[in-house]
Amino acid sequence: MKKSTKTSTKKRALWMWSALGLACGAAHAQSSVTLFGVVDLGVQQTRSGDGGKVTALGNGGLSTSRIGFRGTEDLGSGLRAGFWLEGSLNPDTGAGRATNTNNQPSGATTAGPLTFDRMSYVSLSHTQWGEVRAGRDFIPTHYNSIYFDPFNANGVARAGNLTFAGAGTGPLPTAIAGSNTLSYWLPGKLGGLYGMAMVGTGENLSNAPNSDDGNFAGLRLGYAAGAFDVAAAFTRSQFSSTAAIGNYTHANVGGTWDAGFAKFFALYNRVTVQLAAGSVRKNTAEIGAHIPAFEVGRIRLSYAYLDDRSDTSVRTPGGQARSGDDARQWGVGYVHNLSKRTALYGTYARISNRGEARYVVSGGAAPAAGRSSSGWELGVRHTF
Amino acid sequence: MKKSTKTSTKKRALWMWSALGLACGAAHAQSSVTLFGVVDLGVQQTRSGDGGKVTALGNGGLSTSRIGFRGTEDLGSGLRAGFWLEGSLNPDTGAGRATNTNNQPSGATTAGPLTFDRMSYVSLSHTQWGEVRAGRDFIPTHYNSIYFDPFNANGVARAGNLTFAGAGTGPLPTAIAGSNTLSYWLPGKLGGLYGMAMVGTGENLSNAPNSDDGNFAGLRLGYAAGAFDVAAAFTRSQFSSTAAIGNYTHANVGGTWDAGFAKFFALYNRVTVQLAAGSVRKNTAEIGAHIPAFEVGRIRLSYAYLDDRSDTSVRTPGGQARSGDDARQWGVGYVHNLSKRTALYGTYARISNRGEARYVVSGGAAPAAGRSSSGWELGVRHTF
Amino acid sequence: MKKSTKTSTKKRALWMWSALGLACGAAHAQSSVTLFGVVDLGVQQTRSGDGGKVTALGNGGLSTSRIGFRGTEDLGSGLRAGFWLEGSLNPDTGAGRATNTNNQPSGATTAGPLTFDRMSYVSLSHTQWGEVRAGRDFIPTHYNSIYFDPFNANGVARAGNLTFAGAGTGPLPTAIAGSNTLSYWLPGKLGGLYGMAMVGTGENLSNAPNSDDGNFAGLRLGYAAGAFDVAAAFTRSQFSSTAAIGNYTHANVGGTWDAGFAKFFALYNRVTVQLAAGSVRKNTAEIGAHIPAFEVGRIRLSYAYLDDRSDTSVRTPGGQARSGDDARQWGVGYVHNLSKRTALYGTYARISNRGEARYVVSGGAAPAAGRSSSGWELGVRHTF
Repeated sequence: MKKSTKTSTKKRALWMWSALGLACGAAHAQSSVTLFGVVDLGVQQTRSGDGGKVTALGNGGLSTSRIGFRGTEDLGSGLRAGFWLEGSLNPDTGAGRATNTNNQPSGATTAGPLTFDRMSYVSLSHTQWGEVRAGRDFIPTHYNSIYFDPFNANGVARAGNLTFAGAGTGPLPTAIAGSNTLSYWLPGKLGGLYGMAMVGTGENLSNAPNSDDGNFAGLRLGYAAGAFDVAAAFTRSQFSSTAAIGNYTHANVGGTWDAGFAKFFALYNRVTVQLAAGSVRKNTAEIGAHIPAFEVGRIRLSYAYLDDRSDTSVRTPGGQARSGDDARQWGVGYVHNLSKRTALYGTYARISNRGEARYVVSGGAAPAAGRSSSGWELGVRHTF
Repeated sequence: MKKSTKTSTKKRALWMWSALGLACGAAHAQSSVTLFGVVDLGVQQTRSGDGGKVTALGNGGLSTSRIGFRGTEDLGSGLRAGFWLEGSLNPDTGAGRATNTNNQPSGATTAGPLTFDRMSYVSLSHTQWGEVRAGRDFIPTHYNSIYFDPFNANGVARAGNLTFAGAGTGPLPTAIAGSNTLSYWLPGKLGGLYGMAMVGTGENLSNAPNSDDGNFAGLRLGYAAGAFDVAAAFTRSQFSSTAAIGNYTHANVGGTWDAGFAKFFALYNRVTVQLAAGSVRKNTAEIGAHIPAFEVGRIRLSYAYLDDRSDTSVRTPGGQARSGDDARQWGVGYVHNLSKRTALYGTYARISNRGEARYVVSGGAAPAAGRSSSGWELGVRHTF
Repeated sequence: MKKSTKTSTKKRALWMWSALGLACGAAHAQSSVTLFGVVDLGVQQTRSGDGGKVTALGNGGLSTSRIGFRGTEDLGSGLRAGFWLEGSLNPDTGAGRATNTNNQPSGATTAGPLTFDRMSYVSLSHTQWGEVRAGRDFIPTHYNSIYFDPFNANGVARAGNLTFAGAGTGPLPTAIAGSNTLSYWLPGKLGGLYGMAMVGTGENLSNAPNSDDGNFAGLRLGYAAGAFDVAAAFTRSQFSSTAAIGNYTHANVGGTWDAGFAKFFALYNRVTVQLAAGSVRKNTAEIGAHIPAFEVGRIRLSYAYLDDRSDTSVRTPGGQARSGDDARQWGVGYVHNLSKRTALYGTYARISNRGEARYVVSGGAAPAAGRSSSGWELGVRHTF
């Protein structure tokens, strides 16, 4: 009996080996490769204050849909090598998303097919010295945009609706992620301090015009201890100013406080784009909360205000630009976790535009100037 | 000795863990992710009655080449979550296939790169209540086109050569699969009854012209018991009629009967495209059989007739349109299974066109009006 | 205690099954599917003799970055089926690389998204009879370009900088890999003899103009025994001569000799492109070595000379074309293996152009005619 049990264990193990049979090309004892992803889809309806409505199958209302491969290898003495390849999905259509090869408008790849547009890097890390990554990754400021937005930079109520969308600044290839980057990440064991610095290059010929276009650099520093987590970040991208794009700086600071009965969020962004016609400057402040509910769920709330410091449509008697093309957004949602991997969610968001502002909830069509934009979505997010 | 055996079993298990090391990002006890695919290639030669010949490495002569990732998670109480991401391959060239983002000609993605064009969805299913899927999937009528065609909608002899190809109706983005869909599938335990209903949206702005373009809906109902399987389906896609595309309806009914010595197939399709210049209406009937042979093989036979109800080239004395731009196709093939995963196959098909008809066997070049099209292929299909 | 140990082993095995849960779609006892890849990135700086400089995150300085899926199935009696799907990556940007669908300039797919451009085939192999592959694969001459170049056809010092780059012959779709191919590979057990033959088709209509464009055929034969490995290959691609491309032939012969203290490399290429204006003919000779160093590292050295037999800028008194648009390249590098999977490397290469030659190190910008090109890179290569 004992023998037979052992044999059956052994046989199962062998069978697993052959049935699974999915091994790394160069497997070693300390290695692992992980296939992972998210498929997040929901019914979505967005409305413009001027009457337009779009009924859609929304994508990524709770988390960005994606597929990826990642792995690490233990090299001994605290040193590890690793890689990460992760691409966005639009599972409503089976499409992927474009990446950008040179951090400039000319480097945009065609929309539709799969790429590893989110993250694509090789890394060497050491438990004491930190990590160096080379490749494509989120820029420092975007990490704050994700972690300190109660809607995690996804769905109709994401904070980024105000920060970037409708910014009148054309394509900003480095607004979220950058290519051709080197980054350094502090090690994990610094008593709560964390941070990273990143540089990226547009890979232009040095003696050609606008040779700095697409170069960028950024920094993020944070501190997390107990219920608190705060971080500040700054990223500056260089572009020769054209009608659509110019030097672009983004600074933000944010934090969360988990008070037990609720987790509170705050995020403040300053974005500047230096165009030939003058600088576009926008400041956004957002506060929000997660409130646990129904044992496995949480309510999500946010309120955001965008102050367009460069607007010209409304002037105070003193001639100072103020509150002209500004916008407010509020969002409310509920996430119901069916398991650690699968959740149902519903979100509603509404943007009130002023002056010439035409901000729009994610997935919607841009309203007429000064008209509102709103939308709801009901979806399911499944991770693997 | 016993101890050492145990130890070695344990060691092997650990080694498997590390060597395989390919885990889900958020693995749970009840979850599984499956990598799967088909690589199907063969030598193919197609001929036009007017002398043209193409010698090619044909792709998907037996099954559509593809690669995919799918998985399910048991949520308890009969509820399951799941996802499916599957893209077509052209392994003769390493290319993938385009998908369509809005069910309209404007939403076609670029040809060549990989997408998940076949299926891309998240699903929630319950053993008693059935399944809801959101994403991209085959339209209801296409499931009949696959299951009730003895050539399974693949290769030079597929029934679809007559139903769609050469239809003079330009691009029909929703002829096979649709994006932005919600579908409901009956549960498995209904005493043989099965079925599904699907709606999809073109995601247009409601107050823009042609705002219904790309919207579609469809239904499929079937009954399988013992040796019989029959199903009927209907899909209607909305398009404002232009020169190339208009409202498109496809209805079909089909069945199989496994008589033991042979499995018989029948499939009848009605396709209508409402163009500004008048409706294009085509009816196709196909019969066929699979005959087991040589222990591990089966012979495949089909005969199909297309009646173009909207042709104008030939009129009866009474003025009734009849048999003008019609076509006949017959196909014969043999599949030899080397294993459950790997098969060799050969297929021959010939289409006789009449009037202005220019139908063509899959992979061939369109013949001159009324000339024949024929082709053979010899290939190997390997699934993983 | 013994029992509990056994139970825990069994439990671990079961947990692995569910946690890994990554199985083939149609798993059998003898099957296996392997996920594999390379992520190779490094800081790179290239210079032109005329002053231009590009600072970049270089990609594939040691091995081509890639991701792939491959597998085999034992069919019994020495027969195996298998597939291979492998696509290039540009992990500096998350992009993939284009493939070509018809071996002609018109078949180039769009740059940026993922494809399986490197290898994409299904195969049947037998231990005694060899292997037949159908799909996309490297052409015979490219295998010599990889194995007999001390820089393995990658990075700033690759031999191919001279063989193809700057050849003034426009796009050569079949210079490295071909689509729509059938190939036969000798079995492994021929006492050191190895080889393969390949044909590919442009899949053109036989009665259309230039119907042979994109057809090609090639052969490779080699012998490896003890410390020696030598091989010769020939590939000929047919193109109707236009301004940019014409019939293209590549012949090469190469070898390695592992003398223990060093491994020596030699490679000789003859490339001819028949243009309407006359043939372009270039011969390249390269010698090099790998020298083991620092226990886990090796120094890499190469010197290459390109003789443009078709140059017209310099003539001997007798009127014979000689040494006009020629070029020399030398490369030096060091590879330090941190493990079998992960290596650090540094490479420097310099090309001296003469006459009108504008050859450039991989990743750099083309210099002015006759000016030099040089570059270095420091990178990390991680395989999985």
